[in-house]
Parts: sequence; C-alpha cells; structure tokens
Amino acid sequence: MNQDISRPSVRPFIGQDFLLTNDYALALYHDYARDLPIIDYHNHLPPDQIAANTTFENITQVWLQGDHYKWRAMRTNGVSEEFITGQASDKEKFQKWAETVPYTMRNPLYHWTHLELQRYFGIVDLLDGRNAAEIYAHTSDVLGSGQSNVHDLLHKMKVEVLCSTDDPTDDLKDHISFAQAKDTSFQLFPSFRPDKMVQIEREDFVDYIGRLGVVADVEVTNWTSLLDAIDRRMAFFHSHGCRLSDHGLEQMYAVPFTDAAANRILQKRLSGAIVDRSETVVYKSALLHCLSTRYHTKGWVQQFHLGALRNNNHRMFHSLGPDTGWDSIGDFSQAKQLATFLDRLDANNQLTRTIIYNLNPADNEVMATMIGNYNDGSVAGKMQWGSAWWFLDQMDGMEKQLNTLSNMGLLSRFIGMLTDSRSFLSFPRHEYFRRLLCRLLGQDIEQGLLPVDIPWIGQLVQDICYNNARKYFRFEEQMFK
Amino acid sequence: MNQDISRPSVRPFIGQDFLLTNDYALALYHDYARDLPIIDYHNHLPPDQIAANTTFENITQVWLQGDHYKWRAMRTNGVSEEFITGQASDKEKFQKWAETVPYTMRNPLYHWTHLELQRYFGIVDLLDGRNAAEIYAHTSDVLGSGQSNVHDLLHKMKVEVLCSTDDPTDDLKDHISFAQAKDTSFQLFPSFRPDKMVQIEREDFVDYIGRLGVVADVEVTNWTSLLDAIDRRMAFFHSHGCRLSDHGLEQMYAVPFTDAAANRILQKRLSGAIVDRSETVVYKSALLHCLSTRYHTKGWVQQFHLGALRNNNHRMFHSLGPDTGWDSIGDFSQAKQLATFLDRLDANNQLTRTIIYNLNPADNEVMATMIGNYNDGSVAGKMQWGSAWWFLDQMDGMEKQLNTLSNMGLLSRFIGMLTDSRSFLSFPRHEYFRRLLCRLLGQDIEQGLLPVDIPWIGQLVQDICYNNARKYFRFEEQMFK
Amino acid sequence: MNQDISRPSVRPFIGQDFLLTNDYALALYHDYARDLPIIDYHNHLPPDQIAANTTFENITQVWLQGDHYKWRAMRTNGVSEEFITGQASDKEKFQKWAETVPYTMRNPLYHWTHLELQRYFGIVDLLDGRNAAEIYAHTSDVLGSGQSNVHDLLHKMKVEVLCSTDDPTDDLKDHISFAQAKDTSFQLFPSFRPDKMVQIEREDFVDYIGRLGVVADVEVTNWTSLLDAIDRRMAFFHSHGCRLSDHGLEQMYAVPFTDAAANRILQKRLSGAIVDRSETVVYKSALLHCLSTRYHTKGWVQQFHLGALRNNNHRMFHSLGPDTGWDSIGDFSQAKQLATFLDRLDANNQLTRTIIYNLNPADNEVMATMIGNYNDGSVAGKMQWGSAWWFLDQMDGMEKQLNTLSNMGLLSRFIGMLTDSRSFLSFPRHEYFRRLLCRLLGQDIEQGLLPVDIPWIGQLVQDICYNNARKYFRFEEQMFK
Repeated sequence: MNQDISRPSVRPFIGQDFLLTNDYALALYHDYARDLPIIDYHNHLPPDQIAANTTFENITQVWLQGDHYKWRAMRTNGVSEEFITGQASDKEKFQKWAETVPYTMRNPLYHWTHLELQRYFGIVDLLDGRNAAEIYAHTSDVLGSGQSNVHDLLHKMKVEVLCSTDDPTDDLKDHISFAQAKDTSFQLFPSFRPDKMVQIEREDFVDYIGRLGVVADVEVTNWTSLLDAIDRRMAFFHSHGCRLSDHGLEQMYAVPFTDAAANRILQKRLSGAIVDRSETVVYKSALLHCLSTRYHTKGWVQQFHLGALRNNNHRMFHSLGPDTGWDSIGDFSQAKQLATFLDRLDANNQLTRTIIYNLNPADNEVMATMIGNYNDGSVAGKMQWGSAWWFLDQMDGMEKQLNTLSNMGLLSRFIGMLTDSRSFLSFPRHEYFRRLLCRLLGQDIEQGLLPVDIPWIGQLVQDICYNNARKYFRFEEQMFK
Repeated sequence: MNQDISRPSVRPFIGQDFLLTNDYALALYHDYARDLPIIDYHNHLPPDQIAANTTFENITQVWLQGDHYKWRAMRTNGVSEEFITGQASDKEKFQKWAETVPYTMRNPLYHWTHLELQRYFGIVDLLDGRNAAEIYAHTSDVLGSGQSNVHDLLHKMKVEVLCSTDDPTDDLKDHISFAQAKDTSFQLFPSFRPDKMVQIEREDFVDYIGRLGVVADVEVTNWTSLLDAIDRRMAFFHSHGCRLSDHGLEQMYAVPFTDAAANRILQKRLSGAIVDRSETVVYKSALLHCLSTRYHTKGWVQQFHLGALRNNNHRMFHSLGPDTGWDSIGDFSQAKQLATFLDRLDANNQLTRTIIYNLNPADNEVMATMIGNYNDGSVAGKMQWGSAWWFLDQMDGMEKQLNTLSNMGLLSRFIGMLTDSRSFLSFPRHEYFRRLLCRLLGQDIEQGLLPVDIPWIGQLVQDICYNNARKYFRFEEQMFK
Repeated sequence: MNQDISRPSVRPFIGQDFLLTNDYALALYHDYARDLPIIDYHNHLPPDQIAANTTFENITQVWLQGDHYKWRAMRTNGVSEEFITGQASDKEKFQKWAETVPYTMRNPLYHWTHLELQRYFGIVDLLDGRNAAEIYAHTSDVLGSGQSNVHDLLHKMKVEVLCSTDDPTDDLKDHISFAQAKDTSFQLFPSFRPDKMVQIEREDFVDYIGRLGVVADVEVTNWTSLLDAIDRRMAFFHSHGCRLSDHGLEQMYAVPFTDAAANRILQKRLSGAIVDRSETVVYKSALLHCLSTRYHTKGWVQQFHLGALRNNNHRMFHSLGPDTGWDSIGDFSQAKQLATFLDRLDANNQLTRTIIYNLNPADNEVMATMIGNYNDGSVAGKMQWGSAWWFLDQMDGMEKQLNTLSNMGLLSRFIGMLTDSRSFLSFPRHEYFRRLLCRLLGQDIEQGLLPVDIPWIGQLVQDICYNNARKYFRFEEQMFK
C-alpha cells in the first residue's frame, strides 16, 4: 500500500475542475457556462433584507439561521436543540455546526459548505471543530465590515433576477421600495403563493380569508367575492412585476366540482364549521382550477411543488413552527389527478406555461412523461418538469432529474436551476448545477454517446443555464428598467 | 483549454465501438451477438404492408407517419401540429423533424435517428435543418427505387420472426396471404390482443361485442356465448400460427368473481346500461382469468403490459384518436392484484408461460421479484419480466431493467428484446439492446465482477439475444415451413 | 480483436482487490475495515445449532437447506422441486445447484457462492456441474471432520455478537445454555419478534395467544392481560440479554385507537370470531404502539421490516410453509402511517432508538428522510434507516441505500451491515458490505468529491462497520462477561 495516499493531497478540495471529469466537461463549463448571469426564478429570500440591503454581524446570522438542512444534520449528529434553534450564542452555534461538518461526509452539505466558504469568503480550509473559531472570526470580519451586504453578496454571484415567494396578502412594500432604488445590479420580482387560501382545513383559514378581504378591499363572504379578491390581488402583484405563481401541495386535486358546491363549502367553513375530507377536496379542486385559469389570462407561469409530507413532528412543530426541519418525502398518488387537472385547463385553452416539481424521485418518470401530454407546439418547452428540489437538490438527485428529463423529454428546452433557498449564501448552487450539467455532457461525449461538437453542445448548455429561462418567463418588459 | 476539442472529431458518430467501452464488450458483441437473426415477438407493424410488400415514396411515410415518439418531441420543441399530423407536405414535415433533431440531444431519438439513417441508408451525417433537403432527396431515391420495400428492409436486419398485434375480430387475411407467399426470408405470426372485449366501460363496447359475434358466428348475449366466441376466435388465430396473446392494462384485476356475476354485468352492459366501477372490476377480473386459462390450454404465451395512463389530452384525443402521443406513465398500485391473479391460475395448474411488462420503472423491483413467485421448475424462465418498454426503451431504462433482472432473477434465462414498434425502420433497436447487454457484461468483466471467460458469457449473450426466445415461444413447428 | 481475452485470466476471481477500484479504496478496506470484528445484530440463525455447536455432514446441509434465495434461482432455472426441497439426496441437490450457478451470472448468488467457497473452504474454482462432485467431497471432508463446527465457522469470521430472532413464547433454553458455555469467542443474544401476536387475522391467532398465556403464566382474556403477558415475556427476554425487538409488517399501522376498542376487538377474536379489516387495523395500531412504549421503557432498540408481500404462491405455501421462496416486493403506501406512528411516540417522549428497513427501493427516499423527522439530538444516529434488505442485499441495492442515506442523512452515523441470514456461511456479506463502502468512498476521493484524507475517512469507515453498532446497541454490560 502506498503510504502517501493517506496524506492530504496538494490538490485543493473543490478546485477549477470540481465535478468536471474530462476536457470536454471543462471546456463546456469554463467556456460556456461559468460566466453566465443567474436568473433565480424561485427562492424564499426575505425581501425586507434585500430592500434594506442588510449587513450581517456574523456567519451564523446569514448561514445557519433558518437553514433547516443544517439543523437536521446537527440533530442527526446528536447536537442538542439549544445549539440549533435555542439560546446558545451565535458563536457557540457555529462551533457546533463546524463540529458536525466532518460527519456530513457525502451529504450535499459537505459540498455546499465548502463551496460557499470558498466563493464568498475565499476560505479553502475544510471546516471542523478545530478551525471553527478562526473561521468564525474571519467571516465575521468580512461580513461585518459592510463590504458584504446583501447586494454585494448577490452581485458577486452575477445574479440578474430574483423571484421571491409571497403571500397574496403581502403589501409588497419591500418590492416597491427596492424597485425605486438606484444602482442595483439585479431585479427583484414577487411570486404569488396562495397556499393559505387553498388550505381550507387549517385552523387559521377564516382569519386568513378575513385578512385577504381587508387587503383586497372586498368583503369575502362567498365564492364570488373570493374570486374577486383574488383578481384584485393578482392585479396588484402584476403591477409590481409578478409573472409567476407557486403552490405547495401534497398532490394535485381535480375532482369534479361546481361553483355552487365550492361556494357552499366555503360559506360553511367561513361560518366557523369544519369541512370534511371530501368537501376539502372539492374546494381545493375548484380553487386551484380557478386560479390556474387566471394565471393563463394574465400570461403568468404557474408552479406546483408536489409531494412533501410536512410537519411530521408535532412536538417540534408546536415549539418552532413550520419549515424548521420536520418535513420529509411523501408517497402520494400523483398521476391521475394531475392529468385530469391539466387536461381540464387544456380543453378550454386555459393552460398557461407550467412548471411541476416532485419531491419523491420515484415519481420522476411520471412527471417527465406527464408534461409531454400537454405540449401543444405553441411555445418550445411550454410544460416544464422542474429541477430537482429540496432533498433532491444534490448530485444524485440532480443527475437523475437531468437524465430522466433527457430520456423522456427535451433537456435542450429545460429552464434549469433555481436555489429555492432562504439564504443569501446559496447561489453557488447554480455553479454546482452548471458543473453537473457539463459533467454529464462531457461524459457522454467521451463515451461516444454524443458527437464531439462543443460549440453546438455549448450553445445548449447556455440555453439551459440562462437563455431558456430568460425567454420563458418573459421578464423582458420589466427587466431593463 | 485544448482548442482542438471543439472541432468535430474524425471518429464518426456511432461507429463499430458504439456503446462498447472495452475489449471484452467488443468481443462479446462482434463475435457473439452481432450476426444473430432477430425474433421480434411483439410489435405493432401493419400486416397489410407486410403482405403487400409495400414500397414507400419517401422517408416521411415510413419514418414519421405514426411515430408518436417523434411527434411528442416536435411538440415539445414548439413545432405546430400542422407539420406533425396536419396538412403540411411530407417534405415540410421532414424539414421540421430535422430541425428538431439537434434539440433531442440525450433523448433516445437522437440515437435511434442516426442509427437508423446509417443502417438503412448509409447516412453518417448528423441530421439537422441544414441537410434535411439533401437527406430527404437521397432517402426518397433509395426508398422509391423499389430496392427498399418492406421485405428488403426486414431482410437487411436479419429478421426471422415477426409477431404483429391483432384484434380477435381481425380476419387475418394479411397473415393468410403472407403465409402463402414464396421466398420470404421471415415468418409473420399474429398475436391475440383482446383489449376491446375487456374494456367494458368503453362507449363502443356493445358494438364491439356485436362485431365479435359476427366474425365468430356466435350470437353473444351472455357470458357463456362470449366465452364460446373467444374459443372460436382463439382456434382461428391458432390455426394461423398464433401462439401469443397480449393485454394492455392500467393494472391487473383480480377481485373475487363468479360466472353468474360476470354474466349479470355483461348482460346489463349489452342491454345498453352503464356499469359502475366495481362491476367493471368484477367483469375484468373474470374475463382476464378465463382468457388466461384458455391461453394455458392452448399452450400460448401470455403478455401483460401494465401501467400506462392513456389519452390524457382529450382535446387532441378527439382530434387525432389514440396512440398519437398523449399517453404517459401511471402510478397505479400493482403488486397485490397481480399476485392474486397469477396465484389463482397457478393454484389450478393453469398458469401458462407469462411475460409481464411495466411502464413505471418505480415498479421494476415489484415485477422482477413477482415473477419469481411462480417459477415452478417446469421450464427455465417460465415467468418473464419483459424488456424495458415504451418510454423506458432507452439506454437508462434498459440498463435498469437488465440490472434489476440480474440482481433479482436470472438474466441468463431472459428472452430479450422486441421492438414494440409501428415502423419498419425500428429494427436497429435489437442492435442497440445487444450492444448495451455486451457493454454491461464487458464492464462487469473489467471490474472483476465477472470472471474473464468470454466463451461462457458469449454463450449466455447468444441465449439472451436469440436462443432463449426461440425455445420459449415454440414457433418451431411453424417456423420452417 | 485480441484473442487472448477469451482465455481465462491468470487473475483469480474475487482476489484481494475484489470490488476495490483504486488505491484509496484498497487502503480504506485493508487498513481500516478488513480486520474489524462483526456485530451481526439481526439474523435468523438457529439458536439450537449454536448452543449444540453442530457439525454438518456436508455442504448441502449448511448451505442449501433453508436458503430460499438459492431455491428460487433453481426454480427459475427449470430445476424440479424434487432436487430443491424434495426427496433427492444431499449430493444430488448439490449437483443441481452447481449446474445452476453459471446461470446466476450477475445475480448476487454468483458472488456470494464463490466468496463463501473461498472464505470457508479455500476453494477458488468456479462452481459448475462439472466440478460439483469434487467440491462436494472436499467440503464434506472439511465439515465432517469436526474442524468446522458452528463455533469454528463463526470464529473464522471474527463474529463478536449475534442476535437471533425469537418468538416471545420461546423458552430461550438455547440462549441460556449457550450463555453458560465457556471459551466461546462470541456472544449470542435473543431478539423479541412478536409478529404472531400482531397478526390477529391469522387462523392460529387464538392458539398462539393461549400458548403465550401459558409461558407467561397469565391467562390472556383481554387487553390488560395481553399487555401483562407481554411485560412478563419482555422481562424474561431482557434478563437473558435481549435489547432488541423486530417486526415484519406490510406497512405500519397507526389509525386512532382506544384501549377499550382494542380490548373489544381482541375479545371478539379470542371468542373465535373473525375480525374485519378495519378492526384488524385498529388492533394492530394499538398493539404496535403499546409494544413500542415498552421498548422505550426498557431502553431496547426497535426494528421494523416493512413492505414484503408474502406467501404469494398458495399451492407451494401449503406444501412447504412460509419462508420457502414465494415472497416478493410489495408496493404498499408507507409514509403517512409511519409518520403518524413515530410522531405519536415522540409526542410523549416514548420513541426509542429505531431501525426501519424497507423492501421496495422505490421507498428509499421516503425512509431516508422519514428518520430525520425524529432525530432529536439526544443520541447521534438515534433513528436509523436499515441496511439494504433481502432482495436488496446486493451490490446495486446496497449502493443505492448507501448513496441515498449519504444524500439525505448522515452516512457517518450509520450502524451498518447485518446478515439477516439463516445460514452459518453468510458472514462474508459483512466483507462484501465493507468492500462496497470502501469502493464508494475510494471512488469519491478519486473524483474529487471527498478530500484525500484517508485517516479521517478510515475512521468513519470503522465507525460504520463496527463502532457505531457497538455504541448503538449498548451491549456493553453483557458483552464482556
């Protein structure tokens, strides 16, 4: 056995050739993909911090707060909640995270962590408990100096467009304020995410509808006034650049419904009564259909995120709320209801450009082939199967999505990557996606599965990484103010 | 970056070593697999064109007409229906397809397209919009010259046996006429596909049963006369070489039933009434069981294609009919009903040789292990898990099927590939399968996962590509007339 | 073509570098993993043969008897039942198995077979029909000489701990007798597998409960006395070293229940009546919950094996009984009920350390993310997703489990491999697992996906292969008597 292999290599971890296994891949990435701007068309960044151009005191605030991926890893590693979401200091929390990092070997967090430390802070050391204090001090210096405020962080990554995720009741004041700012290197648009008006089974549904009525200046007492309120909020969002909606659903709902039935169920619920499971499904089927016809009318893109099983740990949900690391992948039936939903819209020529994301990779082939049923030749890539999402947003999950999309649809028409992130430090995920894409194509060329024609394939790489999304979302009119 | 890699390679795309990554793979393919004849035991070729030995005017007629794989790709690429199934000329349609081809990068169509152009027409250029006119002219010359009629095309690929897919009401006149022809290099047999008598929920069911009665010379008014009509049609098909049935089903049906219940439901439906979901399932369970016992009696092989979600776009279904590119992969529950169905047959020693195909690869392991429950030692490979089908009929899907079959069953007893195609130009898929098989085995040998014993593994390759199917279907008595 | 490649290689099949594709993998395996002891925390070995330290007359007795993996392969290969479970002699059965071996190419049996022949008997020849007699004679010599009794076989593989699988009614006499033996190189502990008290739908349920009452010295007439009997049996098992339970279930059951309802259903069934499907589910939900709270109280680990579709061939089940090769992979819905079950325990802080195994790999991602919902930071790796099981216990299945676990959890906290076997010759599966783990890590290092830090990764390898399990099961107090 060669003893030398146990010594740390001179080759730095995550170098120029990271993920790129041959010269074709290197050429595709460095000559075609690397320098493209970023259109991050779906994320959960806080618009207030973007508008305020926040400066962070330390790396815990920008990197660990709100990142439930890291939290889950820490819990799995035996770290107590005090150091995760609890009362421990920012420095202590960073220390615990740093100690966990070596145990994330082969988890995407291991790659994200070091890619982000390198891209934003120039740190090439591998984070662990021993160098945590030093790295904490260095990153705090960089962040606290004010040279790395939110706009700097985004500018550094060549971000061109950001679409945040916003409730229909939102007053969009941060978007409005940001739009008036000068000298920003990127655009910020809202997206319309009406989950709370869909979730009629929620305890706070009636309160929510009340709030919706107030902001829409419509008293919502029935189905007609609900649709009226929706129309007003969509017009408001549209006037502030929104061209995109989003839904988070366990599965699509598309049972038969009438407006009368939807109205009856809504009024029953607004009266304070509970609606049963079958009423819930009728209401959701009706509302989702009516929302989608409106997205079509406005020329928006609609997104559906399907298949998450959420809030599975009620003890922690009651203590910390949603989106704190207690969700997992569901195994819901997806195909028939989704087909019925899309078919009903298509039948009346009311199906707008649509992106469908699935959380369970066992559904990959269902989704990849489903979209093909509704491509009508009107727009290239009208129906999109969204990039690998959440738990799947890693090398294996992204490769599977890219491979299945390639085999069952047209990869060349794919609108590519998005961060879906809550952190301003997540933008190297676009780099990661681009490297993976070039890796796959480079491997195919080397194996003789694709011709050796780098300019042609390079063009398709640029389409997937940037051009397709830019055309697809039609931000043009607003993009260059 | 080495600039040379952006120049087209001197190595032609799809050369001798296509898919074959090492010397073992090359030896297995070229010395064992390449020259074997083809038994294409399931396809959708038109028997009338085979009997008439049709000559095609141009490549659009033999390559694009009826190929809904290509149609879906064109629609996804933003091509209008006029150029797909509409009024545009054959030449215009070919032009649009050619323009789409570069966008099919990584889709199996990219490989099929160039493999077929090369094998049938000697074209090594990569098809795109620029050379479309030239290639259209050249292929029209070859086809229209009459040197490439249907028999020539099949002979060129060493086709030995073809099994078409036929409705029980078919008069088999094309099969009869073909059987009387001299000097053909291959055999043509019908298969029995009684889907329309199973689909009691269809609008045209009663008409269909009427037609069945006419051709069977039995008035079908009840369960007994239906079975009588089936027996007569099976005898007729058998007398014309049929040894194989086929069913297309969302899932297997195997609820408890009695003949009396089946009779009652059938009579209700024949009276013009609609039957409900549970009646439908009882009827289907009964009929499928009764058909299978008859297949066993006759010594036929039965095939089940499970899991397609069909006709999802009603607007286009009404305009173009079935099998025009609006189907996708379903996520039906499969295991329990399938086990019950097979067990019920096995319990009375009425389970004939069976091939089960699944469309959703998430069911691969269910299928690969299901067949093992009913192998009784009577015949090697009695129960078969069919080759990767439809959307799965590509490198990734076929490798997964071969790998899962290897891990959970005996690859060595596999009866191998079939085209399932509607086009006379699809036979290079057998070459593709054979190359993939040799690729996997060659890689295993190189990695030390299999011993370096080429003659032994070469023998198994020949079994999988040809010998196993020949033994399995027992065409012998008819094969060498 | 190089003619030499068709000659058997001088390199022996399954050498030092088996599965290890580069120097990193070799270093990790040979320097870190290879020499570790084995903790086989779940298997189906017969305790009586361990206690008696049985000597086997021939290889058929120790290798083919009870091995339904081999039986299925033989049936698929067309071998008649006479030579599998029938009246043929041990030598004839071995001959038929040997003839089948070459047809198991690419099946894990091909690797297991030659790995086991090599490790236990020093045989490097590849088994087939031609050398069967010779190998039968040689292995009979080795076994019958008494130099390879059960303790020798286990000692040779460095087995440190064995956990058998035992019914709560078992008197554990073999465990007791073994515990009194001197000079054994390993420990034997029982596990508590109460499937028969869960399966209220079984014909022999009432008899079983009667037997349980007798051994527990409690008359079981209602819910309270059933729980009392369980407590007594658990105390008995605990006193003999049991720290582990196990359940085999199609899916988890977690509908709402009350003790009163469970009592009513139990009493109905004990009276001889049949309970319907919904009663069955209530009873199972109640009993599984009550068992789990008890496992928590005692500090045991609980295991759940989910997703098998068993006894699918009734003809053979009636002839041979369960576990004889007629089971396959189910496609049950898993996520929601499993989450509800675990959440209910967690809500009251009654969730003990838990290992969940799934049989359908389509559920891999559901399981890998489900466990993350209940890691509470109390113990590193509290919730475990069990190693690839049964049909998945092969290279492809194990790699998928390791990769998905890596991507969605912490591989570093995994407790690793177990044989789940009924044969004393299955322990090289730990070697196989270790080689595969080192293979994956070595490949990652080579590709730049992991840093070149062999001591760090070597430490994690040792944790996964041995240290984690040793800590997790807390056998310490009993382990070194």
